[in-house]
Amino acid sequence: MALTQVSSNKCAGGFQKVFEHDSVELKCKMKFAVFLPPKAETDKCPVLYWLSGLTCTEQNFITKAGSQLAAKENGIIIVAPDTSPRGCGVEGEDDSWDLGTGAGFYVDATQEPWKNNYRMYSYVTKELPKLINDNFPADPNRMSISGHSMGGHGALICALKNPGKYKAVSAFAPICNPMQCPWGQKAFAAYLGPDRTTWEGYDHSYFFIYSFINDHIKHHAKFLNA
Amino acid sequence: MALTQVSSNKCAGGFQKVFEHDSVELKCKMKFAVFLPPKAETDKCPVLYWLSGLTCTEQNFITKAGSQLAAKENGIIIVAPDTSPRGCGVEGEDDSWDLGTGAGFYVDATQEPWKNNYRMYSYVTKELPKLINDNFPADPNRMSISGHSMGGHGALICALKNPGKYKAVSAFAPICNPMQCPWGQKAFAAYLGPDRTTWEGYDHSYFFIYSFINDHIKHHAKFLNA
Repeated sequence: MALTQVSSNKCAGGFQKVFEHDSVELKCKMKFAVFLPPKAETDKCPVLYWLSGLTCTEQNFITKAGSQLAAKENGIIIVAPDTSPRGCGVEGEDDSWDLGTGAGFYVDATQEPWKNNYRMYSYVTKELPKLINDNFPADPNRMSISGHSMGGHGALICALKNPGKYKAVSAFAPICNPMQCPWGQKAFAAYLGPDRTTWEGYDHSYFFIYSFINDHIKHHAKFLNA
Repeated sequence: MALTQVSSNKCAGGFQKVFEHDSVELKCKMKFAVFLPPKAETDKCPVLYWLSGLTCTEQNFITKAGSQLAAKENGIIIVAPDTSPRGCGVEGEDDSWDLGTGAGFYVDATQEPWKNNYRMYSYVTKELPKLINDNFPADPNRMSISGHSMGGHGALICALKNPGKYKAVSAFAPICNPMQCPWGQKAFAAYLGPDRTTWEGYDHSYFFIYSFINDHIKHHAKFLNA
């Protein structure tokens, strides 16, 4: 599985990079971002997977969340994939902002015309971790997951369906069905992280994520570096 | 001078806002961003003016630099104006990315066709501070200035031409003429801040600014809160 480096910027003493590869699960070229803290130059580091929300690419989190300094501080690699297959030519994939391109929902589609490409669940839980573990100084036994909105939902589902796989999970404003999800209606616009009382007054934007990402990373570090 | 609020997002315990107003100096509508730390709810706070680089608007700094948490920590208001007049219809203003729209260079133009609108120096040193002091809980006796690239140059010029006006000045990669500027060729791609040795390997992007903005704000706070 060959990786092509798309960009590399020194950041927070380490490197914020973007790579492209041919995805087996999604049958298209996919981009993902990876932050390598300075510690990764000499040691294997744990990995936090970040799942972004609707309409995002691998860029939003790395340019707006301000995660790299806390990742450096705690010696954590952060991997942020794109949010869906792109350019697969699936009928209807570009018709709506909340289904298809930019809206993969981190599930494995079971029906035509989606099931051939829209396999984001398998991509983020299996193919991408293998790629990261094979190509970067990542400790395969220490991974965790977080995300925002559609990606917050994705992070919760990935963790709940794979007990023991992730050392920690958190979510910013996870989209979920208030009638069916165990944490109820409150969580619809809420915050599942180290302190559930602090998010009042915040909106759904990256200003919200930026405000609390340090707390989340500290929370993940507690388990990743235990 | 009426201000229209364009956006308001809770951020880092305070508010990241954007306003629009009719500028007297520039004879057009101008936008600026202002971060109000929680402390501004009860106290007058010092103001750090941030001047952005070529092609930027008031958005780049507030979405990418990650400045708000340090501003909260130090009780500092940060004001980030747009980088030029817009939509004035000056001949040639949209022909090039490095002159005219998005490239005001923080000078007062002296020649036609620019001199009627392109007065960014007077805007950022006089009109904008008056507007801020009149409309926000800003302490008019405690202001400082910083910026990146064209805006790093602008910050240095504003401070050097107005001794005593700013309590502190710093610059990220200030554009200057290496033959004419006193700090020489090295500064062309360099860093004029609290520690000049740390910037090696960084590029001209916001990943660079993000990596050191906390150090700059701490440096400004030392003088603004003295």
